[in-house]
Amino acid sequence: MDNLIFERRREALRARIAAEGLDGLLVAHAANRYYLTGFELHDPQCNESAGMLLVTKGGEWLLTDGRYRDAALRLLPEAAVFIYGSPKIPLVRDFLKSKCPGVLGFEDTALSFRLHQELSVGLTLRPCRNLVEDLRVVKDAAEIERMRRSCAVNHAVFRRTETLLVPGRSEAEIAWDLEKLFRDKGAEELAFPSIVAVDKNAALPHAIPGETRVGENCLVLVDMGCRLAGYCSDQTRTFWVGPRPTEHFSLAMERVREAQDAAIAAIRPGAHARDAYLAARAVFDKYGVADRFTHGLGHGVGLETHEAPSASMASEAVFAPGMVVTAEPGLYYPEWGGIRWEYMVLVTEDGCEVL
Amino acid sequence: MDNLIFERRREALRARIAAEGLDGLLVAHAANRYYLTGFELHDPQCNESAGMLLVTKGGEWLLTDGRYRDAALRLLPEAAVFIYGSPKIPLVRDFLKSKCPGVLGFEDTALSFRLHQELSVGLTLRPCRNLVEDLRVVKDAAEIERMRRSCAVNHAVFRRTETLLVPGRSEAEIAWDLEKLFRDKGAEELAFPSIVAVDKNAALPHAIPGETRVGENCLVLVDMGCRLAGYCSDQTRTFWVGPRPTEHFSLAMERVREAQDAAIAAIRPGAHARDAYLAARAVFDKYGVADRFTHGLGHGVGLETHEAPSASMASEAVFAPGMVVTAEPGLYYPEWGGIRWEYMVLVTEDGCEVL
Repeated sequence: MDNLIFERRREALRARIAAEGLDGLLVAHAANRYYLTGFELHDPQCNESAGMLLVTKGGEWLLTDGRYRDAALRLLPEAAVFIYGSPKIPLVRDFLKSKCPGVLGFEDTALSFRLHQELSVGLTLRPCRNLVEDLRVVKDAAEIERMRRSCAVNHAVFRRTETLLVPGRSEAEIAWDLEKLFRDKGAEELAFPSIVAVDKNAALPHAIPGETRVGENCLVLVDMGCRLAGYCSDQTRTFWVGPRPTEHFSLAMERVREAQDAAIAAIRPGAHARDAYLAARAVFDKYGVADRFTHGLGHGVGLETHEAPSASMASEAVFAPGMVVTAEPGLYYPEWGGIRWEYMVLVTEDGCEVL
Repeated sequence: MDNLIFERRREALRARIAAEGLDGLLVAHAANRYYLTGFELHDPQCNESAGMLLVTKGGEWLLTDGRYRDAALRLLPEAAVFIYGSPKIPLVRDFLKSKCPGVLGFEDTALSFRLHQELSVGLTLRPCRNLVEDLRVVKDAAEIERMRRSCAVNHAVFRRTETLLVPGRSEAEIAWDLEKLFRDKGAEELAFPSIVAVDKNAALPHAIPGETRVGENCLVLVDMGCRLAGYCSDQTRTFWVGPRPTEHFSLAMERVREAQDAAIAAIRPGAHARDAYLAARAVFDKYGVADRFTHGLGHGVGLETHEAPSASMASEAVFAPGMVVTAEPGLYYPEWGGIRWEYMVLVTEDGCEVL
């Protein structure tokens, strides 16, 4: 990404910081840090930080350790990079105090209880929520272009999937074949572990590809996505292997696709995300199978596989142009499996577009 | 793992819970949760939990959402699984209160500021540190067997590595070849993104495999590891490609290997981890190059790539049989690159063993 894009994002954040009555924000969540600087989309482990970003009214500083010095200096001038040595906490605290003596906001889901406690000595900290996420929810042109490319690779791998569903091959073998296809087509990594689920396994919402093998007549649910140029894709298809699908497969498939069409028709600027969920649900209600639809309609996608906006009963989100959300209705039957079909949908100026 | 092993681990934790004067512990860190139950080694995202484990003096309960019901019931009886619906927080809070009306400990680095704040209404919470990690640091026989297998695959991939370092091939291409080898040999995933660093890139502690290509005469540093049966491996080698290494390469290599030998000689039960670091450093001091050794000696490995015990200047760990720690001294020269060599070392009853 152009450095100008990061600057523009930080300016937008500064406006929010001022509106909240804060003097600065400490950004600890990895995807937020990356969104604002391009620095390290991943932490080395969930319990190990690659660094934090301080954004104040007047500037920004990346706080990181010596391992990341080189990576930081490729993105920010030397004066904007603070390398903490040991002991980390007092050094970080003093640096934050010197750059932001006033009220410092922090992301209340990204700071651990302990780190908050350690930093709060001598700093005036205030918990904040979604200050960066609210910016990320609307994708800019450069992000949409990357998401199109990520989704295009996803489509390309799906075009190859049917030929991989050969009787005798296991779910795990197929999942690994799909992963290799993603990588060979330029993806950095999978966006999440692929689901390849044969027959009854398709009814498990958290199916892990295992030793179950494709049969002569069976269904295979494939839910997969990749990360390309930083951005995630996420799509699901359910295939029938064999000469003729069973009636319950075909019937559930028709209903799922009808529900998906209804949901997508409800996605447009100003519409409530909850109503898109309810549109899908209304179709299942009509057929008396709404109890088989056991999850929400979908979730936002971007730098993370799961991000805002959520499209479910509990969602309070309102669609706006530039949002990207999945539409993935499903019907599940422990006796024989299930059907899910998932598209990524971009909210446009006057409606939406399936990516 | 045998369910008896998980029960034994929970009993050991119960003794610690009692010793701390707690009535229970809420385990939120994914690797700890897995260690105690076998449930979900990974959370879906760092900011999204697959569930939490409550361990009290009298029992244990896994709190999770509907997606994981099936996975939970394969590990625990139905009465020990609590599926929270929506709204999650009050349901979780009431459940915790009903099972642990007294003092409930929580992992202070695993609970976010927000989750702590939300749960603290009506519960008596007390921050705790390393209650499960202190158990994990000493591996039992079943874990050591898995770590041997994980490390054996790492060795097997290293035996194939030299043939992949062909002039003209890029770091990124080689890294992907290595990943495929790991997976084809049975690894679930990489333990961390591989480092494949040509020449000067080897001086970057956080080198990302890129478009730099192997030359006719060059060094290639490879730091890689996999996860097998849940357990991580992590090893580094530095190769010379071409007829004859440069003198500075050979000299640095000799010194690094000498430092590594000295460090390994200092690893035995009762020895301080800091002293193993100092033993390596003393060798570099002798040659006047200690300023080129810019990191610690190593870190524990197990369910996570980085875990206790740390072997560095700041470490307070004392070695005990069953600990596994890396010994990875290195010397770095921005002008031409660097050398690192890393083994995994198991502390035994009377010394140590290189895995």
